[in-house]
Amino acid sequence: MKKQLFSTLLFACSLTTLTAQTPVYLDDTQPIEARVKDALNRMTLEEKVALCHAQSKFSSPGVPRLGIPELWMSDGPHGVRAEINWNDWGYAKWTNDSITAFPALTCLAATWNPEMSAIYGKAIGEEARYREKDVLLGPGVNIYRTPLNGRNFEYMGEDPYLAGVMCVPYIREIQKNGVAVSVKHYALNNQELWRGHIDVQLSNRALHEIYLPAFKAAVQKGGAWTVMGAYNKVRGQHACHNDLLLNKILKNDWGFDGVVVTDWGGAHDTYEAAMNGLDIEMGSYTNGLTSESAFTFDDYYLAKPYLRMLKEGKVPMSTVDDKASRILRLIFRTAMNRQKPYGSLTSEEHYQAAREIGNEGIVLLKNTPVQKKGTPLLPLDGSKYQRILVVGDNAVRLLNEGGGSSELKVKDMVSPLDGMHTLYGDKVVYTKGYAAGRPMYGRAEEIPQSVMDSLRTAATELAKEADLVILFGGLNKNHFQDCEAGDRVTYGLPFGQNELIESLLGVNKNMVLVLLSGNAVEMPWLNKVPAVLQGWYLGSMGGNSLADVLSGAVNPSGKLPFSFPVKLTDCGAHAFDELSYPGDSIKQVYKEDILVGYRWHDTKKIPALFPFGYGLSYTTFAYGKPVASAKTITADNSLTVTIPVKNTGSVAGKEVVQLYVGDEKCSVLRPVKELKAFQKITLAPGEEKEVTFTITPDDLKFYDEAVGGWTAEPGKFKAYIGASSADIRGTVPFELK
Amino acid sequence: MKKQLFSTLLFACSLTTLTAQTPVYLDDTQPIEARVKDALNRMTLEEKVALCHAQSKFSSPGVPRLGIPELWMSDGPHGVRAEINWNDWGYAKWTNDSITAFPALTCLAATWNPEMSAIYGKAIGEEARYREKDVLLGPGVNIYRTPLNGRNFEYMGEDPYLAGVMCVPYIREIQKNGVAVSVKHYALNNQELWRGHIDVQLSNRALHEIYLPAFKAAVQKGGAWTVMGAYNKVRGQHACHNDLLLNKILKNDWGFDGVVVTDWGGAHDTYEAAMNGLDIEMGSYTNGLTSESAFTFDDYYLAKPYLRMLKEGKVPMSTVDDKASRILRLIFRTAMNRQKPYGSLTSEEHYQAAREIGNEGIVLLKNTPVQKKGTPLLPLDGSKYQRILVVGDNAVRLLNEGGGSSELKVKDMVSPLDGMHTLYGDKVVYTKGYAAGRPMYGRAEEIPQSVMDSLRTAATELAKEADLVILFGGLNKNHFQDCEAGDRVTYGLPFGQNELIESLLGVNKNMVLVLLSGNAVEMPWLNKVPAVLQGWYLGSMGGNSLADVLSGAVNPSGKLPFSFPVKLTDCGAHAFDELSYPGDSIKQVYKEDILVGYRWHDTKKIPALFPFGYGLSYTTFAYGKPVASAKTITADNSLTVTIPVKNTGSVAGKEVVQLYVGDEKCSVLRPVKELKAFQKITLAPGEEKEVTFTITPDDLKFYDEAVGGWTAEPGKFKAYIGASSADIRGTVPFELK
Repeated sequence: MKKQLFSTLLFACSLTTLTAQTPVYLDDTQPIEARVKDALNRMTLEEKVALCHAQSKFSSPGVPRLGIPELWMSDGPHGVRAEINWNDWGYAKWTNDSITAFPALTCLAATWNPEMSAIYGKAIGEEARYREKDVLLGPGVNIYRTPLNGRNFEYMGEDPYLAGVMCVPYIREIQKNGVAVSVKHYALNNQELWRGHIDVQLSNRALHEIYLPAFKAAVQKGGAWTVMGAYNKVRGQHACHNDLLLNKILKNDWGFDGVVVTDWGGAHDTYEAAMNGLDIEMGSYTNGLTSESAFTFDDYYLAKPYLRMLKEGKVPMSTVDDKASRILRLIFRTAMNRQKPYGSLTSEEHYQAAREIGNEGIVLLKNTPVQKKGTPLLPLDGSKYQRILVVGDNAVRLLNEGGGSSELKVKDMVSPLDGMHTLYGDKVVYTKGYAAGRPMYGRAEEIPQSVMDSLRTAATELAKEADLVILFGGLNKNHFQDCEAGDRVTYGLPFGQNELIESLLGVNKNMVLVLLSGNAVEMPWLNKVPAVLQGWYLGSMGGNSLADVLSGAVNPSGKLPFSFPVKLTDCGAHAFDELSYPGDSIKQVYKEDILVGYRWHDTKKIPALFPFGYGLSYTTFAYGKPVASAKTITADNSLTVTIPVKNTGSVAGKEVVQLYVGDEKCSVLRPVKELKAFQKITLAPGEEKEVTFTITPDDLKFYDEAVGGWTAEPGKFKAYIGASSADIRGTVPFELK
Repeated sequence: MKKQLFSTLLFACSLTTLTAQTPVYLDDTQPIEARVKDALNRMTLEEKVALCHAQSKFSSPGVPRLGIPELWMSDGPHGVRAEINWNDWGYAKWTNDSITAFPALTCLAATWNPEMSAIYGKAIGEEARYREKDVLLGPGVNIYRTPLNGRNFEYMGEDPYLAGVMCVPYIREIQKNGVAVSVKHYALNNQELWRGHIDVQLSNRALHEIYLPAFKAAVQKGGAWTVMGAYNKVRGQHACHNDLLLNKILKNDWGFDGVVVTDWGGAHDTYEAAMNGLDIEMGSYTNGLTSESAFTFDDYYLAKPYLRMLKEGKVPMSTVDDKASRILRLIFRTAMNRQKPYGSLTSEEHYQAAREIGNEGIVLLKNTPVQKKGTPLLPLDGSKYQRILVVGDNAVRLLNEGGGSSELKVKDMVSPLDGMHTLYGDKVVYTKGYAAGRPMYGRAEEIPQSVMDSLRTAATELAKEADLVILFGGLNKNHFQDCEAGDRVTYGLPFGQNELIESLLGVNKNMVLVLLSGNAVEMPWLNKVPAVLQGWYLGSMGGNSLADVLSGAVNPSGKLPFSFPVKLTDCGAHAFDELSYPGDSIKQVYKEDILVGYRWHDTKKIPALFPFGYGLSYTTFAYGKPVASAKTITADNSLTVTIPVKNTGSVAGKEVVQLYVGDEKCSVLRPVKELKAFQKITLAPGEEKEVTFTITPDDLKFYDEAVGGWTAEPGKFKAYIGASSADIRGTVPFELK
């Protein structure tokens, strides 16, 4: 007995030595890799496996015994989503989770201004940090392949270069807050229909030239700490545990040292998840029970079944060591980053950032005089109008609601109607004009024709008495519109808007049409409408941004990040049979191959209604003659192209000067031209600036399937400088030696 | 228009300057007071008021706009409580909130070992930190006035000095984790009956000598960052907004610079809350609705009504500046403390801490031979018994459940029966013996007499066939037992245990009785039971701690932190009419005045069944003659008393040597003696150590009501050194000149 007592007392002494040496993994002065290694060495197999799967809808466990904190994740990507219940999809009804809604990423892409991306990332990163999130689930950089994709509004357009450039500052600034991004959806989740199982077949060229570069930029230039796998299959294997995408390309070729997270419910197989580069499984099904028959987080593919396979030697221990190391690295970068700032929520700076991004992203599509030889309708001169009719469901709809996982709970929201009231006060009369139903999953709300007719008739009657009609229409966040988990069913405007537009124009030509959407739409009435704005989804300050642009307080400078085809079949994805879009429900084949967006329009000589890179201003810009620094380029050097651009109008403005490069002759099909650089410049009236672009040999390369790498063939190339992909103001030939 | 454009562009430039100078309040290198001042200067009135009340059941807002984080609080005090719903009392059903349950604070007090308090604070502080809590609602240091108080188990006994010494390391170690304690319930919440409104009347002497010193030690020696107000009234004013307690004593006299938090629902008046020193209002009623008629967190006394009074000038702005400054200071100390460690949850060290505190806190009340001239029954020699009957609901009950706000969700729990199985394996037979109902609020579950009879009969039959009976009885965490919001209704053991004990003893004298409770109970059968242990509530490792002590692996060393009166009326609080206890439902008068606990027993010469400071060991200790360093003491010096103590038994053990001081003659009534120092020493068999105590002039003082301060009258004093308050082994006279 004495001996036992003694050992108990001895233990008491060691416990009371309350200041022990700091272990390496808790020592901030040690390099992260040493800390990862030290923590891993202290962990049990069960603790390692626990890191690899969710413990709740939006969190994964840390190592409680060792004081390694949990990871808390949140949608993403346009604001920090409201708190979700522990084990179901209901909102938790907290009251501290109302946030700033920022413009959708399509709008950010439309700014063509990396500084706006930085402002966006800083603001949303601060909100995520304040909300104690470790991972913000965004940005989305899937390529815009078809205007029917329900989730395009979350992405950054059709061009891999533009998306790649525009996502990098957003990523870097978010991560400065100790909050990881999760670049999604890797890869080829380019439609929502059948997203959970559709098997995407495409060439290696399309994969590497079109669909992967933005992800590569996010990882290599943005330094993204996590990547989210896509729901769909790629070449027969689910993207969330896809050997080619995750092991070979992402982790090996690109050197990604971060964490691959599933999309919620994107894991389907323990062996593949173990072997093919998945790190954290989130969102798999649980039945929410706690009884013996419960299907719980412990039943996830990367939970008990994985532990079992590890113990039975069916998958190597190195897999879990690799996953756990990556997750620990992520935790050290985020939850255990002592130096991270504290963030902030709904600050004036955040609202101002939202407004400013909106201001720069709104695209002026059309602006003509109502009467011949008059001045263009925009900017609106309020003093000219006594009675302004505002029409449209989107003038008052909370477009932060619906849409799927990007749904936001806003603290403040300035609607377009609010914005018009601020501008024009009592002159404003509002009528709905059309009804657009509620955000619902699995079906669209049916609006009776009689309701639509009476709303349209009422609006038309009011339009007769108005000096000016401003219609806020477009799509919305309902299922089968701009919404996750389903695609649009038609390219045309929904909810009888075409009829409404025609009816209003029949009685009043003084009409501004503002389209709020994340997708292109068909515009059969376009030649009759004097002014059209593409207003995206603008978030908390939307009404102010639109008022700024409509009134001319801000001169529009957005450019389209994707083409608006005249009709759906003018879009490459829809130029083939159904196997190309939407597939046969099992698989699909990207038959347009590399010719996505303007690459299709250019190469096939099918003009777009509004081309990629297009956007008007309240001023005009004259482009001078471009001059190249040399006539040839070799593998070892680069050349520059300089062009003077002058503001020839009467107001200050911003212009996005775009550089495209085309290969005049090649052994493989190449697009006529591809975007390789752009600069957004600010010019006072009469001011001229020289814009200089650098072209490097890499800008000339294509993905050579035979070699499995990038190559350029010597010969003639051409640099195209323009105000859009279809408005080329000058070209310069050069040769690759 | 140009001008507007320009200003927009200018703002863009300032926003894109992404690295701004760090403001003072965010600069860790600045002193906290400068940061508090800077933050306060940036805040709106509405933001200041928002800090002063809850936003959910257990959180209060920060300043989202400025990136000042929220405060998250949790019960407390024996483990970190499970997550609670946002706006109702239901558990949130998270799965990351299972923790280590530590022994109740009565058990910690019974260790008489400040090192155990440090171990406790370190472990629970680490768990609170890992759970991301900023404030842990404990410790409780209300004085044990009556054994009927339902919440005594959360407190540290009847003596202000013992409670004061024992709470300090717990507080300091918790706060080293960047987690504030909330010392509760300030003050005079000494019964649960009518706690919400009972008006406590007592003398200034009783207030200052008995009921406040532990709080004062917590604040001044522990450095507690928050204090929780009590539910009851004190001299006509609710304790949560009580001018005397909060403004005068706590904040002015004691110099407390922290935050006063209400007990949940303890605020009752906006004006008083504004003026009388309350800082954060928590737990007031909301109806959980979100409609127009909702009563919400914004309707709290310190929310909109406070804002209104401030704006109308009915309370000065200085009140909200003071409150906000205190709350900001707390936030800088906790949520914005970058240096705090990460904590940990359910680590081996925490389980070991729980076990060790239990080992040192269990009190051996009685240990005699079963047969004349035999050896005492304990420690149990397992080899002597072939069939061991374990009886009692408390052998298997999850005593972490119930009890009120201290209820815990444990990850692991070793029951007493588990502990007996570990010790004795198949020899153990278990029967319930009595039924004790479920934890329910507002009523006790009725157990039919027939059920009680049959359980007792079955146990008695089994006891006949056993070599040894171990009964785990006592109270439990049901309402009207050891539970918040109600007092016990009888001093005797509940659930028919007296009959059960008699019945078992009738067939088997080899019986060990283990009482699990936080209160004294009546023991009419005591002379018939050979061995009795007071086992408190021991938390996760309870079964192991009890097994350690019963088997002799650990030699018991706990001492009672409160007296066990023979009968209820032997207790000072119950020696008068009902106005003394429980009061007339409106008010009560503490008629025993300063004579609480052993002060009553000593002074009134009413022997306790088991006195304060009492506890046996498996060894024996001989005390030598105490020697004083001088015969006199003056206001400017101190004297020491030294006494040799020897382990005269055959096993190692620990003894708590206690020093009491008595004033031989005084112009006011003084207790015979009062505890002024103690030391817990470890002695090997045969080992002797000298214990030296220092007596200072402050130890001789009483609170002089005429002066409103502490004073000592010159004359004769006596130092008493003993093994308990009733087992004095030596005295030394001395004189105050």
